[in-house]
Amino acid sequence: MVTVAEPTALMEEIVVHPPKRLLYGPGPGQVHPRVYQAMAQPIVGHLDAYFFEISTDIQRLLRTVFGTKNEMTFVISATGSGGMETAISNFVEQGTKVAVFANGFFCDRQTEMARRQGGEVVRFEKPWGEVFGDNEAAEFIRREKPQVVTYVQAETSAGAFQRGEAICKAAHEVGALVIADCVTSLGAMPVEVDKTGIDIAYSCSQKGLSCPPGLSPITVSPRAMEWLKARTTPNRSWYFDIKLISDYLIQSHRYHHTASATMFYALREGLALIEEEGLENRWERHHQAHLEFVKQIEGLGLEMLVAPEHRIWNLNTPKVPQGADDAKVRATLLKDNGIEIAGGFGPLAGKVFRVGLMGPLATTDSVNHFIECFGKALRGAGYKG
Amino acid sequence: MVTVAEPTALMEEIVVHPPKRLLYGPGPGQVHPRVYQAMAQPIVGHLDAYFFEISTDIQRLLRTVFGTKNEMTFVISATGSGGMETAISNFVEQGTKVAVFANGFFCDRQTEMARRQGGEVVRFEKPWGEVFGDNEAAEFIRREKPQVVTYVQAETSAGAFQRGEAICKAAHEVGALVIADCVTSLGAMPVEVDKTGIDIAYSCSQKGLSCPPGLSPITVSPRAMEWLKARTTPNRSWYFDIKLISDYLIQSHRYHHTASATMFYALREGLALIEEEGLENRWERHHQAHLEFVKQIEGLGLEMLVAPEHRIWNLNTPKVPQGADDAKVRATLLKDNGIEIAGGFGPLAGKVFRVGLMGPLATTDSVNHFIECFGKALRGAGYKG
Repeated sequence: MVTVAEPTALMEEIVVHPPKRLLYGPGPGQVHPRVYQAMAQPIVGHLDAYFFEISTDIQRLLRTVFGTKNEMTFVISATGSGGMETAISNFVEQGTKVAVFANGFFCDRQTEMARRQGGEVVRFEKPWGEVFGDNEAAEFIRREKPQVVTYVQAETSAGAFQRGEAICKAAHEVGALVIADCVTSLGAMPVEVDKTGIDIAYSCSQKGLSCPPGLSPITVSPRAMEWLKARTTPNRSWYFDIKLISDYLIQSHRYHHTASATMFYALREGLALIEEEGLENRWERHHQAHLEFVKQIEGLGLEMLVAPEHRIWNLNTPKVPQGADDAKVRATLLKDNGIEIAGGFGPLAGKVFRVGLMGPLATTDSVNHFIECFGKALRGAGYKG
Repeated sequence: MVTVAEPTALMEEIVVHPPKRLLYGPGPGQVHPRVYQAMAQPIVGHLDAYFFEISTDIQRLLRTVFGTKNEMTFVISATGSGGMETAISNFVEQGTKVAVFANGFFCDRQTEMARRQGGEVVRFEKPWGEVFGDNEAAEFIRREKPQVVTYVQAETSAGAFQRGEAICKAAHEVGALVIADCVTSLGAMPVEVDKTGIDIAYSCSQKGLSCPPGLSPITVSPRAMEWLKARTTPNRSWYFDIKLISDYLIQSHRYHHTASATMFYALREGLALIEEEGLENRWERHHQAHLEFVKQIEGLGLEMLVAPEHRIWNLNTPKVPQGADDAKVRATLLKDNGIEIAGGFGPLAGKVFRVGLMGPLATTDSVNHFIECFGKALRGAGYKG
């Protein structure tokens, strides 16, 4: 008998020795221990019956967290930006008119990708941290009559949550498909694809789903699939071609690419944790942690960038207070507490902190610990508040 | 203090319970236990100093296994086919003339991707399992004068290894760049990018490198980088844009996408194992396992598809013998022994088995065990040899 050592047996010293981090940044967030356990399980092949069992479980559980009945709900073998490219490259071809709601970094990325696919992009721009009202959003769409509309539900660069009902309603009136970036919201806040009217939504594994980065969940409405089947030009991308990927993962199980059993195990376990907790309980836990965070951060004398009703629960953007050196605060947190947070960038560089409360870290204890460390670091960096 | 459980502590029962497999297929291959250990380590962020330390180590070690001095040697956050799309989408634009050496499934995939990018493809076709001679290869290139040449070094669909020196020499004479698919060879056989003259080579994590699927190592020559810098049209793909990815991983460390610390840990550990064994020792181990396999498979009365001098060491294609039902053989191996192998497909459907001997399974003990199980399965499926 051939001897192949068990994955779980510690054979010898490994070379990877990462420092311990508490990931309070905009993502990746803290990974749940059960997800690490799942990833240590031995792999099977990408065409193994067990692989498809895991993949089918993932599809079912993703439908719940996305809030959709879409059969075409599956996983892209790339990070969240790969999910964005999947959405854009399948639905934007040479000459497609694309309307982008632009109020942050990831809307700009949607713009860039749409232009690379040959799309003609029109933009409705707002300062980072603001959101679009129902009437102005609908007017923009009715005036421009685009074929595709994109917006970012939870804009990680700014901390603002964009409601989508009015956007989707107006888009459908003019016959446009709606692409929504749900990278930061999925698993932590209500995404509600069907209720909102979103046609294509994509996300990532490393934020609200508490897994490592590496996969991008996506869901596509029957209406969008009809459009795609009727598309006459080939997607420039073979790797992100939804017709080929969905055939592999959902329909024929015919080989497309070699999906990673390990990463699928991680996502399966992460979604099991959400199912066990209950999706609405999980949202509520993130909401309560957010409210507690805001209370305590205002107690320190800081202000939030985004208006209360438009805040993302799991990604907070308090303003850098007068007198504090934000880079120093971040360096201190990392050095003294192993805490990672992020600063602002683009128009918000030096103006906000970006603090994530995701998955295992979305608790009152976690907020208490963070604020204690953060308060010390602020005062050490010149803040007198 | 906030309590976040350690990844290594078994907290509670997980839901992922894969069957145990011995992966003797064309890939993924068996993962080394140390790689699983590395993946169970806690993640850091994609901009953490430790992440870039791991990434830089990977780049250094990849240069050795690729056999190159190329500074632009790094990792794509997608599977091997994502590496192929990276190579094609960066170097093939609308109207680029692409010459494809076509003797298997993955050459056809290169063709498809090149056409989607707008390339004008000319093909030199041979039956699957055959390779191209130096003179005919050079004549084809001199006659066609392409701008890009692609070939597959180790064609997984057929088991043939294509030497590249003559191809690269002729291509460079006509000013063309050479893209080589090294998905199956890297880490198990000499790839020798610089010695061969390859401009762009890509691979995967799950074959000769003994990691799970999910990443694609790539290397790009200075000559190809010059061409890329002078390219005036944007790559249609933002996700696979080499200029952006190399800037993130090698140059400025500016955010591009959220690379997976977990998968990078895996690759770092897999490459450490190669460094510890010694690359040439590892090649020799795969070579010896291959020779032993051929001796024993011929002892069972089977013939190999590919001529001896053109065989891939770590992916063997014995012909299905008269009287044996190949699907039944594969089903028996999986059911009775947990052994995964693959059958042929396309023109080789029902005609060959595809048996991988990779990483931990490239040993004499492993060959002995495989042949014992395989012989029984063959006889149970009607083979009288």
